[in-house]
Amino acid sequence: MTRLVLATRNPGKLAELRRILAEAAPAVELVSLLEFPEIGEVAETGLTFEANALLKAHAIAQATGLPAVADDSGLCVDALNGMPGVLSARWAGTHGDDLANLNLLLAQISDVPPPARGAHFACAAALALPAGEEVVVQGTLPGAVIDKPRGVNGFGYDPIFVPEGETRTTAELSAQEKDAISHRGRAFRALAPAVAELL
Amino acid sequence: MTRLVLATRNPGKLAELRRILAEAAPAVELVSLLEFPEIGEVAETGLTFEANALLKAHAIAQATGLPAVADDSGLCVDALNGMPGVLSARWAGTHGDDLANLNLLLAQISDVPPPARGAHFACAAALALPAGEEVVVQGTLPGAVIDKPRGVNGFGYDPIFVPEGETRTTAELSAQEKDAISHRGRAFRALAPAVAELL
Repeated sequence: MTRLVLATRNPGKLAELRRILAEAAPAVELVSLLEFPEIGEVAETGLTFEANALLKAHAIAQATGLPAVADDSGLCVDALNGMPGVLSARWAGTHGDDLANLNLLLAQISDVPPPARGAHFACAAALALPAGEEVVVQGTLPGAVIDKPRGVNGFGYDPIFVPEGETRTTAELSAQEKDAISHRGRAFRALAPAVAELL
Repeated sequence: MTRLVLATRNPGKLAELRRILAEAAPAVELVSLLEFPEIGEVAETGLTFEANALLKAHAIAQATGLPAVADDSGLCVDALNGMPGVLSARWAGTHGDDLANLNLLLAQISDVPPPARGAHFACAAALALPAGEEVVVQGTLPGAVIDKPRGVNGFGYDPIFVPEGETRTTAELSAQEKDAISHRGRAFRALAPAVAELL
């Protein structure tokens, strides 16, 4: 059974990727970066989600000698010209402070009326092999940002994002409901055939 | 002598506008919103600098019965897709906290290398008459964002912005040097002929 490293230590993201890839590529043994504590953070210095996903996948494939899958994703808000975008996880200045990021975003667009609160989640998912081959794909989920957080599922900006055609936030959807429509679900399902073929 | 209201209570901005318009339109008596304490804040709900400048100028012209000049300006950072833009004064979530805004911006782009730190200051300046006539013009100042604040002049993002062709930040320039090249100086000098003509 081929081992594949998922390049994340974020528990929420890890659970989500595991569910999606386990279904799409069942012949692969998934391990996470938690099993490689010696590997440091890969700096996400790219200006696009694709660049960051590829940066991470290549760095982890080199460091582990195993095929690696990485993603980069974020929320792109129309009234912020598509930001926080690649800066979603560090929007408030400190990496990974979901609550600070979300509260800052709400404060920044507090005067923006509902019709102008369009946004989309975007995800780039990349596979890199130790020898250097790479594949990168994208998935998006259109919707809007509401003005008060609702729901306890998910992570990041999930409590303030309502997908198009939904009334619930992505933090009010079950894990399975979210996987079915999410930017990350879409990106990883699009990547799965490449994973199956390249391994 | 015609009275003209400058639609600001920000002391830094007020001093800057006074210097520029006093030179460009000396036949006009400039008063500021500080002389109209009963007039509340005009919500800056526009999505562009021009829209906000016109919103404010019309609101103040209506409220005072006098010709009013207003501006909206901000810093547009390439790596943030042109943001903070119209949200410059409330980027950290609270209106007018210059230090919080500046520190948040520095934290957000801390991984962005110098060649990608391009930015420009932009200013829209609008004149509105009580009867409804309006003029709006724009000025910009291209440059780059540095990684540590320098200088004590100016306000807002001045300590972290170095104009193209300069080595000093806009907070290290004298008031006169800044007026000569600034986005606000350019916009207000472009507006001055319209002020002279319409009044």
